[in-house]
Amino acid sequence: MEVERLHALQAYLHDAIPLSAAMGVSVTSASADAVTLCAPLEPNINHKSTVFGGSASAVATLAAWTLLHLRLSDEAIRFHLVIQSNRMDYDLPITGAFEASSSLPDPSAWPSFLNMLARKGRARIEVQSALIYRGMVAGRFTGRFVALLA
Amino acid sequence: MEVERLHALQAYLHDAIPLSAAMGVSVTSASADAVTLCAPLEPNINHKSTVFGGSASAVATLAAWTLLHLRLSDEAIRFHLVIQSNRMDYDLPITGAFEASSSLPDPSAWPSFLNMLARKGRARIEVQSALIYRGMVAGRFTGRFVALLA
Repeated sequence: MEVERLHALQAYLHDAIPLSAAMGVSVTSASADAVTLCAPLEPNINHKSTVFGGSASAVATLAAWTLLHLRLSDEAIRFHLVIQSNRMDYDLPITGAFEASSSLPDPSAWPSFLNMLARKGRARIEVQSALIYRGMVAGRFTGRFVALLA
Repeated sequence: MEVERLHALQAYLHDAIPLSAAMGVSVTSASADAVTLCAPLEPNINHKSTVFGGSASAVATLAAWTLLHLRLSDEAIRFHLVIQSNRMDYDLPITGAFEASSSLPDPSAWPSFLNMLARKGRARIEVQSALIYRGMVAGRFTGRFVALLA
């Protein structure tokens, strides 16, 4: 995605979900395959000068949501997107700016997800996000989302 | 806990974890049995005028962390507290101010947790938080934390 569209996506996120602005989230890259968000340490810091787990999980959630939002926006449908559940593993402390990079754990599930959404008006899909700090995986998110036809 | 101590705890949270101030978190009640935090809709809203899942999970995480922080602060030890993993279930949309109330799923595990911490310098424990909106459970958090002697 070119720079103008990344900026527009970032502005949309900050407007739609004000906490993303409070967390200082920026959009590094975005495609149907992966969305990468970046967040600085300062607004997300805790008492030990590492990233607060709640911030890490929220940025991972946002990256996952954004990927589905982009994919569904490419379809000629109106939809609602709701998170149903997630799991988060915190592997390493994060002491600086970090990235959350989302993808589908099983991209081959996409056509049947769209098919189910068209037929039933409702379908579930899993999205994963990896938190990356200094080139290492510092956290792993898996979320289950429900899409509904609007 | 009396009002002055609740205010002091709230000020500590806002200082230690600035995102808690950005989310408008206040401390409703706090004891060794349960910590209840409250958060307004506005700073945590999403594009559908419901609470962003990342905010809901972050407030639940903070309630769980605060409970362990209070319990460990009552012991004559210096400690670090780190979240290792969590699961979050989003049961109902939240369209206004909500609470997160934390407790130990198994309070009888506390003495052996402290014993392990004293003997090994490291111990794990689970904490749960319920998100309450208009008297209903709107979300459920379970987190696994590691305490380390400092």
